[in-house]
Amino acid sequence: MIGFNEKLDNAAVRNRSWLCVGLDPVVDKMPKGIARTPSGVADFCQKIIEATSGVVAAYKPNIAFFEAFGSDGWRVLSDSIAAVPDHIPVLLDAKRGDIGNTVKAYAEAYYGVLGVDAVTVSPYLGRDSVEPFATWPEKAAIVLCLTSNPSAVEIQGMEVAGEPLYLRVARQTGEWDGTYGLVVGATKAEMIGDVRAVSPETVFLIPGIGAQGGDLEKSVTLGARKSGGGALINASRGVIYASSGSDFAEVARVAAEDLRVQIEAIL
Amino acid sequence: MIGFNEKLDNAAVRNRSWLCVGLDPVVDKMPKGIARTPSGVADFCQKIIEATSGVVAAYKPNIAFFEAFGSDGWRVLSDSIAAVPDHIPVLLDAKRGDIGNTVKAYAEAYYGVLGVDAVTVSPYLGRDSVEPFATWPEKAAIVLCLTSNPSAVEIQGMEVAGEPLYLRVARQTGEWDGTYGLVVGATKAEMIGDVRAVSPETVFLIPGIGAQGGDLEKSVTLGARKSGGGALINASRGVIYASSGSDFAEVARVAAEDLRVQIEAIL
Repeated sequence: MIGFNEKLDNAAVRNRSWLCVGLDPVVDKMPKGIARTPSGVADFCQKIIEATSGVVAAYKPNIAFFEAFGSDGWRVLSDSIAAVPDHIPVLLDAKRGDIGNTVKAYAEAYYGVLGVDAVTVSPYLGRDSVEPFATWPEKAAIVLCLTSNPSAVEIQGMEVAGEPLYLRVARQTGEWDGTYGLVVGATKAEMIGDVRAVSPETVFLIPGIGAQGGDLEKSVTLGARKSGGGALINASRGVIYASSGSDFAEVARVAAEDLRVQIEAIL
Repeated sequence: MIGFNEKLDNAAVRNRSWLCVGLDPVVDKMPKGIARTPSGVADFCQKIIEATSGVVAAYKPNIAFFEAFGSDGWRVLSDSIAAVPDHIPVLLDAKRGDIGNTVKAYAEAYYGVLGVDAVTVSPYLGRDSVEPFATWPEKAAIVLCLTSNPSAVEIQGMEVAGEPLYLRVARQTGEWDGTYGLVVGATKAEMIGDVRAVSPETVFLIPGIGAQGGDLEKSVTLGARKSGGGALINASRGVIYASSGSDFAEVARVAAEDLRVQIEAIL
């Protein structure tokens, strides 16, 4: 077995891609020819994965959209994750953070049962709420640092000891045990470089291009490691809902390939 | 329909109780006579609820422990919530926090589908990640303020603008739209009074007595509103696993009643 960082680097090299496709399925948005049911959604996710797996470095299912299906949600999520080729890492976007024994239950569910490679986690509860996700063999915790939503800086931008909280969070993950990545939003492109300066080798998961209006060029330029790579650009709605017709999978592939090429050109 | 605060106050008055029983079911801890399966766990939760519903003000299922059952988890959670009498509020301990469209998916799942009365949420993403839980009619967002785990103060205790972050978070919820409660851990009993001073009328959910070692007397004294009440003391393992024998439900009732009486005496 190889560690999370190596698995991601290998997938990125193999597909010449630092694109992460976000799987945020919503029944109302299912394209033509896909049933508006949980099994339709599972079918949709599998077709998106099949069409795009040659041009991505990772997938990021957001568990909220699967939970919205109630008791069928877990099965849809599990089937979707199983459809991802083994060499491509799956980052479960769950933004978890809880006390010790609860975090262990989450880690067992996500790593042990679902078999994902990484989980997004909130830093608000501190080290002991995050480490169980980061110290699991071969896995990684992707810590929310600077998020892409409009209110993000309300708390994350508060000044602590002469710097904004999000930089302090980035520094703290460097002191904790295990393997970490950081969520750094493309909508705050100017600040990405500051996070890179304190975390030179850490993988950044960068959401917020597309529907949220983040800047792709700045995100890649400021987010990449000096050695290149390490800035995983997430696109969800702009890829998976690129067409509402029966050609949705092919159009998703074209949209993903277009982003892949743009990212490669910037790098 | 009545709002969350009124529903909780009514339940507290009716049962003369500010006790919240936490439902954190773990297969390995199922008592004698209960199958170590998801349906056994559902049966366990229902028996605990039936035995204790006359002595509590609320229940708090932690969704992590239900997710650990995979695809059966949602059904076990849903059945457990349905077993709670209508007049007793259910606080779903989920510690969620995500960007706008994702939060709406969570809120729909928890309020719309499961029908809980409140959800615990993390403040790290700021206002727009929290308000959809707080502005849903008759419901409330219970915001993580000062948690009960050992690492809590690493981030929450950082000084921002001359006060610790957790006090700043308490103040901010007062500026946001909707109905809020605050999670304030019993393990940080000395600090509970500081939070009460900035949030005089807010409901506090106070975890951390029992297995985590928090101080019940200080938590109630410092956590209660001036007018009395408003400090919801959570107990999970100490009540639901009070006996591993076939008398587990009756022993849980005795443990819960004992706590109820202690809380009432302090108030």
